[in-house]
Amino acid sequence: MSASTPEARQTCIRDCHALVPDASGVLTLARHQDILIQGSRISEIRPTGAPLAPGVEVLEGQRMIAMPGLINTHAHVSMVIFRGLAEDVSIERWFNDFIWPLESNLTDADVYWGAMLGLIEMIEGGITTVADHYFSMDEVARAVEGAGTRAHLGSTAFSSRGYQELARTASFAERWKGGAEGRITTCMAPHAPYTCDDGLLRACVGHATRLGVGIHIHAAEDMNQTLASVNRRGRTPIQVLQDTGVLGVPTLIAHGGGLLPQDIELLVRHRAHVGIAHAPKTSLKLGMGLAPVRALRKAGIPVGLATDGAVSSNTLDLFEALRLLALTQKHDALDSEVMPLAEVLDIATRGSAAALGMGDRLGTLAPGYQADIVLVDTRGTHWQPLHDPMAGLVYSARASDVHTVMVDGRLLLRDRQLLTIDKERVLAEVASGMERLAQRVPGSRIQHYRP
Amino acid sequence: MSASTPEARQTCIRDCHALVPDASGVLTLARHQDILIQGSRISEIRPTGAPLAPGVEVLEGQRMIAMPGLINTHAHVSMVIFRGLAEDVSIERWFNDFIWPLESNLTDADVYWGAMLGLIEMIEGGITTVADHYFSMDEVARAVEGAGTRAHLGSTAFSSRGYQELARTASFAERWKGGAEGRITTCMAPHAPYTCDDGLLRACVGHATRLGVGIHIHAAEDMNQTLASVNRRGRTPIQVLQDTGVLGVPTLIAHGGGLLPQDIELLVRHRAHVGIAHAPKTSLKLGMGLAPVRALRKAGIPVGLATDGAVSSNTLDLFEALRLLALTQKHDALDSEVMPLAEVLDIATRGSAAALGMGDRLGTLAPGYQADIVLVDTRGTHWQPLHDPMAGLVYSARASDVHTVMVDGRLLLRDRQLLTIDKERVLAEVASGMERLAQRVPGSRIQHYRP
Repeated sequence: MSASTPEARQTCIRDCHALVPDASGVLTLARHQDILIQGSRISEIRPTGAPLAPGVEVLEGQRMIAMPGLINTHAHVSMVIFRGLAEDVSIERWFNDFIWPLESNLTDADVYWGAMLGLIEMIEGGITTVADHYFSMDEVARAVEGAGTRAHLGSTAFSSRGYQELARTASFAERWKGGAEGRITTCMAPHAPYTCDDGLLRACVGHATRLGVGIHIHAAEDMNQTLASVNRRGRTPIQVLQDTGVLGVPTLIAHGGGLLPQDIELLVRHRAHVGIAHAPKTSLKLGMGLAPVRALRKAGIPVGLATDGAVSSNTLDLFEALRLLALTQKHDALDSEVMPLAEVLDIATRGSAAALGMGDRLGTLAPGYQADIVLVDTRGTHWQPLHDPMAGLVYSARASDVHTVMVDGRLLLRDRQLLTIDKERVLAEVASGMERLAQRVPGSRIQHYRP
Repeated sequence: MSASTPEARQTCIRDCHALVPDASGVLTLARHQDILIQGSRISEIRPTGAPLAPGVEVLEGQRMIAMPGLINTHAHVSMVIFRGLAEDVSIERWFNDFIWPLESNLTDADVYWGAMLGLIEMIEGGITTVADHYFSMDEVARAVEGAGTRAHLGSTAFSSRGYQELARTASFAERWKGGAEGRITTCMAPHAPYTCDDGLLRACVGHATRLGVGIHIHAAEDMNQTLASVNRRGRTPIQVLQDTGVLGVPTLIAHGGGLLPQDIELLVRHRAHVGIAHAPKTSLKLGMGLAPVRALRKAGIPVGLATDGAVSSNTLDLFEALRLLALTQKHDALDSEVMPLAEVLDIATRGSAAALGMGDRLGTLAPGYQADIVLVDTRGTHWQPLHDPMAGLVYSARASDVHTVMVDGRLLLRDRQLLTIDKERVLAEVASGMERLAQRVPGSRIQHYRP
């Protein structure tokens, strides 16, 4: 096997500060480490200084923090093309007067170029994996394949669009499962309990079991949805997921701002394979209320970090999200000691991997894990002096500090330059569709919000 | 007068999008404008395209947003040298075990180099004016003089340090009033009602009146302080400010997380010359509770934005602060319609200028105002496509998007390069003191926190 094949590729990130678990499992910053990568996996992490075998490609890591590639546990990536089109509106108007009318304009090509633009923003910001829940998902899968990132993809289904959508979400999950050399995983993607009836949810569980995949769904996004569900169906959204069997398969639940204590009791039983995607910027901006992160963590339920789509969050930036997580949890408790640095970073790395059911191969820098690694440049003014690099990661870092990004040992970004995508082409394609995409035809919408 | 003198300098920022009040006074983005600057002031804003007089220096503004230089209404700039040294601790420990022991290490040189580092971070992030409340303020004034920024400076006084501190804060205010060619204004700076007795506060009012300056003070930072004040003195901190005459002179109050409705009623009477500096990142991170921004605004009391010092906020970044302002107000109300884009930007510009009593010359792009202008680059991926530049400013912009910064018509930053400060020298000086500055000698502190 020649040294140029991916399996034989050897890389050393030399003399970086590495975010790794200490002997007791708590995340810490190990200074001056070499990270050795063989093919697509991390082979060794050791103090810098030992000689390297010939043929090893060296990436200099001085004054960089190496951390696991960030995992965006819930997004609608292609929606970046609508960025800024639905500001300061209620959640009802956000859906009914903006998003769902705007989405009636969408073409496959829009979804493709939107996915490429969103992938660029995410790679530039250190995000190596995204759980995406959207339409025209073959386009997204093609974009991910080309970009070189990792993704967990599901094709959105609503009951209102008939059972052909169920067939579509199932056939997509089957078609792309294990795609892009294993970088793509798939799932069934019913939209939400308020847009999917019990029959559709049960059918999704059946397909998920048949295909050996999980489910990605919005649920209990805010307390109004929970109350509406109790009023209409006599059950909370989480109880609906329980009753329809959704919680019996690996399930990723987006938001959770409307979780009640009894919902957490239900989720605890399924915590080995059910996780919550917490998107603080969207929850704050749309006034949805925050997921009860501390209670979920205390109950051992995996919590991951997410951006959601850019029409609610405006950016696909997990450094922003992890800072908002920390600040809002301290604020919510009126206690500056809660959500300390190591826990914030744990949620953003291992928590997100666990929420996706991928904690055994992603989210940790350790031998045997996939070599999805981000180097964060600590040389900016806002990091100086660097008394505490972990504080820097949580409270100073910006997406623009991301210097190098690797997935499966392959470089996607180096010295802030994209290596796998023609950015100018993508920007031009997106710009060319702007005017058409911003049109909202009265009465034309893909769905109606009534939780 | 030759063209090279500052008074005769003419500049045109050509073809930018300008954040300006519309006919009804609401902030809007006027596209494709030329901003003409004569000497230190804006002379005209007009649609681009008209020919320019010979000798006018042109700054190209395509794909840039021009906005008023940001005003940081409350900070302790030099504290950047302690960045990251007091994480995840209660406010009591933050003061007693960290900040006040750390500050017992401070030398004049530390304050100077810290101020320079903080000024670099602020200029790079579009902040042109700062209200700074700290020690060794002659050093800070010298730093501001050299950096070319604007500042409102006060030398901190505690009762525990005796009346020589009163003399120091007064003599500093007198010495530097109108300094740095008018870019420095000064104030009396008693630390807080919980560290200053009524006598010191009254004496500060006397000096302020004599010198024709105002007062900058921390008060009602959180609800615990308010309750402690009521318990001990039978009055809220704001009532103490009223009774001692502080509210009778122009006063800038930092934080206000502990304001009660009756405090707002008191402040309303003085709203022509009293403002609140709201530092959301610090308030969230230290679990202090947020100032009642919407109630203050409704009552017509000026609210400005602030970073506070970097040991609580970690960064001196007002783009982060304005986003936190917007997100937390929507969250607090559980209503996505509150704090719309134009209001967020109003607080960050005109609100901050008004809180400092400088609304007649700062915070607005209009003829006659000081030419303190920032160009924000909208070309980054996280802005695309640019359907709504104002949404971009509030929810996408990063400090690293700041491209050009001007104060009094003079360029301090151009194409992200500092023009007035030797950054490498400053970083080296700060780094050389790191180890000594991080030491905390048990029992050695400048003050004790007991609200």
